[in-house]
Amino acid sequence: MTAQPTLPGGLIEGSRHLYAVRAYYEDTDLSGIVYHANYLRWFERARSDLLRLLEIDQRSAVEAGEGAYAVADLHIRYARPARLDDTMIIETTCAELGAASVRIHQRATRDGELVAEQTARVGFIDPAGRPRRQPAVWRAAFAQFAEGTE
Amino acid sequence: MTAQPTLPGGLIEGSRHLYAVRAYYEDTDLSGIVYHANYLRWFERARSDLLRLLEIDQRSAVEAGEGAYAVADLHIRYARPARLDDTMIIETTCAELGAASVRIHQRATRDGELVAEQTARVGFIDPAGRPRRQPAVWRAAFAQFAEGTE
Amino acid sequence: MTAQPTLPGGLIEGSRHLYAVRAYYEDTDLSGIVYHANYLRWFERARSDLLRLLEIDQRSAVEAGEGAYAVADLHIRYARPARLDDTMIIETTCAELGAASVRIHQRATRDGELVAEQTARVGFIDPAGRPRRQPAVWRAAFAQFAEGTE
Amino acid sequence: MTAQPTLPGGLIEGSRHLYAVRAYYEDTDLSGIVYHANYLRWFERARSDLLRLLEIDQRSAVEAGEGAYAVADLHIRYARPARLDDTMIIETTCAELGAASVRIHQRATRDGELVAEQTARVGFIDPAGRPRRQPAVWRAAFAQFAEGTE
Repeated sequence: MTAQPTLPGGLIEGSRHLYAVRAYYEDTDLSGIVYHANYLRWFERARSDLLRLLEIDQRSAVEAGEGAYAVADLHIRYARPARLDDTMIIETTCAELGAASVRIHQRATRDGELVAEQTARVGFIDPAGRPRRQPAVWRAAFAQFAEGTE
Repeated sequence: MTAQPTLPGGLIEGSRHLYAVRAYYEDTDLSGIVYHANYLRWFERARSDLLRLLEIDQRSAVEAGEGAYAVADLHIRYARPARLDDTMIIETTCAELGAASVRIHQRATRDGELVAEQTARVGFIDPAGRPRRQPAVWRAAFAQFAEGTE
Repeated sequence: MTAQPTLPGGLIEGSRHLYAVRAYYEDTDLSGIVYHANYLRWFERARSDLLRLLEIDQRSAVEAGEGAYAVADLHIRYARPARLDDTMIIETTCAELGAASVRIHQRATRDGELVAEQTARVGFIDPAGRPRRQPAVWRAAFAQFAEGTE
Repeated sequence: MTAQPTLPGGLIEGSRHLYAVRAYYEDTDLSGIVYHANYLRWFERARSDLLRLLEIDQRSAVEAGEGAYAVADLHIRYARPARLDDTMIIETTCAELGAASVRIHQRATRDGELVAEQTARVGFIDPAGRPRRQPAVWRAAFAQFAEGTE
């Protein structure tokens, strides 16, 4: 048996999800710090990892023409700059769960200090871009996660 | 004389700046629409174009170790999805001008309809990431822009 | 009548296509120069602009489930680093035209000096990812472009 | 003690380095597959992970004004499309080691099948972009890796 490299992989602890990221060259800009838009990519990776753990299959839903989650609005605050090779923990919690959308709070910390935090409202949309009720099993999975009983 | 291809280029009209973008493959994701983080890149291009027109030289300031603008926080709302080949106008206005930061409002429209709008607070930081007064001539240029007398 | 901001837009001159790009914050990394992968995005924008001028509608083809162009392989050489605010001209020519693929040569220059050059073979694939003959009208448009009779 | 999320992390086995990636929304485009330029970002993450394991500190070298590795040229071949949620192993080997540059071969596989492979020549450049001998300890670390004695 040979050793295997480690995939990024989060875990659910009660009503929060934890995920880890490292800053690479692609994430930085010429000012030496992580480019502001790239935090949104990190937060999205964490949300996708949470969906995966909740057994919500985004790809099948898109390929079957059912729809996809899309961000409806978000607020992000940058507390401290992140730099190349920094490792951060992203904590994700469900702030509010509705019929067609979910409000999600996320915090990125480095050695326990806040780097950035974001609140996003994510809605389910059909392939034409119209808001639509999220699948019932998806909503149920989120409800369990929000209650910490998952 | 040969014809030349056209660079993206904005213009200042009174107290607003207009800039145009087109959605390319790189901007979209598998759900068929523009990936949410990529709007931040478009809005940043428009702000950089505004700085260029105000004769604020970001690159020299970074290379001289003076500092750079960095986003402190932002709120973005996605009104309608954008798709491949869509062309949008980004309108940028200065909502508030402080000693160390500027609050900037930006709207992306397609055929006059709102696609996304963002308000960002952008601060000046030194190479170590600490907030710092922006250069006086930069602030003066912004003041002129905000008043529409540029 | 009010002035309008300028979209990036290329032009066809004989058997070559010219397109212009400017380097923004998003394109750079902490070493102060443009991140190597981002040249591929620029070259792809130029190819998409060429398709647009040839009246090849990529989005309709994807949405109709017909297929899309995908890069099969590419070679890129970085001759000189590009930096923030640099403007470059991308010249695109068709090196070879086949039933299912096209070989395209592209050069990015700044003030006439080579910054990077790339040769890519681009094939047409169906939604399952299998190679497929490109639509006859697309091939004909490319043939005209390659001959400089477009 | 609480469980911790897992960072991506590679390992060295003899003269090869293994690293794992997963495809996220940000990596895909509207054709439903991973956008071609994003493989370069994955391969770069793997190379950075290798440098980290070889105790080569890229960030300190950039911040001290010594220089950085930059890709001089690369060839990439796309064998099979990757899709959302696919996990891939990237295998990296050192094909050739020179005074100022290294030639690196990388393969991404999914369930043992080739997805993409790349050969890149990476050179060391000073902050002005001029080629420069790589630091002696860096070269020695690469030599050990290439020989599989690391």
